[in-house]
Amino acid sequence: MTTPTPPRATGDRRTRRREATRRKLIDAGRSLFASQGVDATRINEITELADVGFGSFYNHFTDKDELVDAVMMEVAEEQGSIVDEATGGFDDPAAVVAFAHAHFVRLAREDPSFGQLLIRLDASHRVMSEALGPRALRDIQKGLDSGRFTFEPATAAVLATGGALLGTMRGVVDGVLGPDADRVHAAAVLRMLGLEPKDAEETARSAV
Amino acid sequence: MTTPTPPRATGDRRTRRREATRRKLIDAGRSLFASQGVDATRINEITELADVGFGSFYNHFTDKDELVDAVMMEVAEEQGSIVDEATGGFDDPAAVVAFAHAHFVRLAREDPSFGQLLIRLDASHRVMSEALGPRALRDIQKGLDSGRFTFEPATAAVLATGGALLGTMRGVVDGVLGPDADRVHAAAVLRMLGLEPKDAEETARSAV
Repeated sequence: MTTPTPPRATGDRRTRRREATRRKLIDAGRSLFASQGVDATRINEITELADVGFGSFYNHFTDKDELVDAVMMEVAEEQGSIVDEATGGFDDPAAVVAFAHAHFVRLAREDPSFGQLLIRLDASHRVMSEALGPRALRDIQKGLDSGRFTFEPATAAVLATGGALLGTMRGVVDGVLGPDADRVHAAAVLRMLGLEPKDAEETARSAV
Repeated sequence: MTTPTPPRATGDRRTRRREATRRKLIDAGRSLFASQGVDATRINEITELADVGFGSFYNHFTDKDELVDAVMMEVAEEQGSIVDEATGGFDDPAAVVAFAHAHFVRLAREDPSFGQLLIRLDASHRVMSEALGPRALRDIQKGLDSGRFTFEPATAAVLATGGALLGTMRGVVDGVLGPDADRVHAAAVLRMLGLEPKDAEETARSAV
């Protein structure tokens, strides 16, 4: 008779506790970054709010920037899902892209946590690419396949339109763009993807 | 008889020595960043190459990033002047913008120092804006005034097209774009500014 393998209860429980602590740190970081910005937030404030020991921060993150990364990835992923949900029934690939871009421009204006994170531009570029790049590639490829867009290859289009979005979002956070920045930006992106100017304007107006 | 004011020889000489040291540090930094990248470069390597004392680095720069900033500002300013010189006689504001954008995309591919600096994206955004933002605003405003461009206000156009340029340059440095990335990007920017797709394509082809 072979010895039965003992259940790995300790490993699972340890994993669950690790994930619970990580979750508390991310939530606390997100909340503090939103209310007071990344630079003004100290790690001990994060661990205080998360109700975990100061040292345990470093079991999860090398430094504050790594936590900023994690928070931004989550926010971008959440928002990406929201956009996917909202545009799932759209027929027109251009309407999908217009909606998605306008959504993020509005987010930059209305969501303090997102705005504060965007100010850390290096993290923004990398995180936005990782979290949203695949969605952007998918949406743009659809438009190219259907002939709606002409900017190819898709990779070049994703990089240029994604970069334009970051530029516009920075302008919104810096307060130098008007209330219609979302629609203006969306139309501009559609033109960049190959739509005739009138078409881009009309599509942006109805989608945004 | 009034006492003659002594000449301020010491102040001028001190200033000249300060500027000479700063110049040596910037040149050394630029050279090392180009050959081995920013992260791999230590401050003592910079002061060694500059042939100045290690401590004097800190009389000029708070840290390495501040030197990266200064180097990038210079490179951007130099390249901006080169573009101004090259496009001074152009009649078409769209040709000016196409040339300028293509120039920087090519620079990202061919100039290791520029590429290495671009990887520090946060510095890139800020420096590119400060050094080149005014030129971009000037060129885009000309196009708007003449009716060649329709993307307004100029600020929104500068932010979106500038952001697109950063995105494309990152793609070039990461090696994911083809050899025609400069022309493709230039045409995309002209479409974004309001040119009909055929017009954008032709203008980019002849200007780039």
